[in-house]
Amino acid sequence: METKKKTIGILGGMGPLATMDLYKKIILSTEAAGDNEHIRVYIDGNSAIPDRTAAILSGGPDPVPEMLSALRNLEACGADCVIMPCNTAHYFLPRLQEQTGLPILDMRRITAEACAGRFPGKRACLLGTKGTIAAHIYDEALKAAGVEFLTPDAGEQDELMRLIYGVVKASKPLEPETEAWHELLTSLIGRGADYFILACTELPILADHLGHPGPFVDPTLELAKAAIRFCGYKVKE
Amino acid sequence: METKKKTIGILGGMGPLATMDLYKKIILSTEAAGDNEHIRVYIDGNSAIPDRTAAILSGGPDPVPEMLSALRNLEACGADCVIMPCNTAHYFLPRLQEQTGLPILDMRRITAEACAGRFPGKRACLLGTKGTIAAHIYDEALKAAGVEFLTPDAGEQDELMRLIYGVVKASKPLEPETEAWHELLTSLIGRGADYFILACTELPILADHLGHPGPFVDPTLELAKAAIRFCGYKVKE
Repeated sequence: METKKKTIGILGGMGPLATMDLYKKIILSTEAAGDNEHIRVYIDGNSAIPDRTAAILSGGPDPVPEMLSALRNLEACGADCVIMPCNTAHYFLPRLQEQTGLPILDMRRITAEACAGRFPGKRACLLGTKGTIAAHIYDEALKAAGVEFLTPDAGEQDELMRLIYGVVKASKPLEPETEAWHELLTSLIGRGADYFILACTELPILADHLGHPGPFVDPTLELAKAAIRFCGYKVKE
Repeated sequence: METKKKTIGILGGMGPLATMDLYKKIILSTEAAGDNEHIRVYIDGNSAIPDRTAAILSGGPDPVPEMLSALRNLEACGADCVIMPCNTAHYFLPRLQEQTGLPILDMRRITAEACAGRFPGKRACLLGTKGTIAAHIYDEALKAAGVEFLTPDAGEQDELMRLIYGVVKASKPLEPETEAWHELLTSLIGRGADYFILACTELPILADHLGHPGPFVDPTLELAKAAIRFCGYKVKE
């Protein structure tokens, strides 16, 4: 590469496994034949960031100060861009972006464009936390890309929250949830879903293990690929 | 927790997948019921660190300046300890330790103690890069813990280097190597190995995927557990 190589900062910890999953997807999606051909990646897995859904929906503590603490560390390391492996956290992106000169790559816009490209004219089902759905975090990006979508009903949403908080974030075994996961998706297909947007970073972890044909759009993977391209590296297809 | 929570700094990138593997093992081995009960982890996945084996054996570029660059970043983030997911890199630990006040947890000592505890009186086979074996990086720690061990012969060592550099570090598919991996271990068992020390951080990635009964001691996992305990958190058994 002729120009100075660019680096990635991951504002992570929301949760830790999702942060690891994003790092893994960056590594596996980079065209590289050895250690030195990979992108330099800085991670702050800040486990002290308060829950984003609780902050949005029920007056829980503001996560922005701890997110800023991580952002400052990524700046100190010399990151050229910032990515956040938490969809709900994108609610706070404007407040973070006005505090830093580093570009924060927007997972919602990147995902919406991937949906429009891969499934033109089809109807998405947006799967996420209650915070992501109720605060309409994805709506603007999906509308801008012309993506039609439906969301889970109240019962489906409760089941999704159980899988996210009671299983993945609680580091419980995933396999016993295979039937619950398949039932949930079947119910959503019955209501008109043509494909699924896994718009909570814990969900690709479930989906990668529990074998359902989907089809899925994985925002973590799309964000990884966008960050690789931002840094001037080649995506391995 | 009553006292201030301690954090971990991972001096990584040697290689990236091994760094991801260590982070994953820290997360999965921490007793935690939600995001906020995990340890704050800082990672510098510095892909610019020159190859350690080449530096030790064939006059390749000194990796210490780039390792120090990562160490300074981890200091700037506020890490309370440093861990390095690269066994060969431990050759340079004394030079790094004299440049920082942060404790660098020594994977070799931690691994040797795990071996002595789990397999008293048995003979280990030490698997690692040519750099790790030829520079006797583990020998002192194993002797101090009273662990008897053998090392691969020249042909076995070449095959091991092919698996490490030609497969894992090259991000090639692992499954086609199942037979090669099993043959290598069978040959070493024939020469008197009772168990295997996976003393290159790319090897647990192979071993986790290619299903051989071992038994194995995984220095990455032992290092993860030691770092969890250093920070005052509970290891999930």
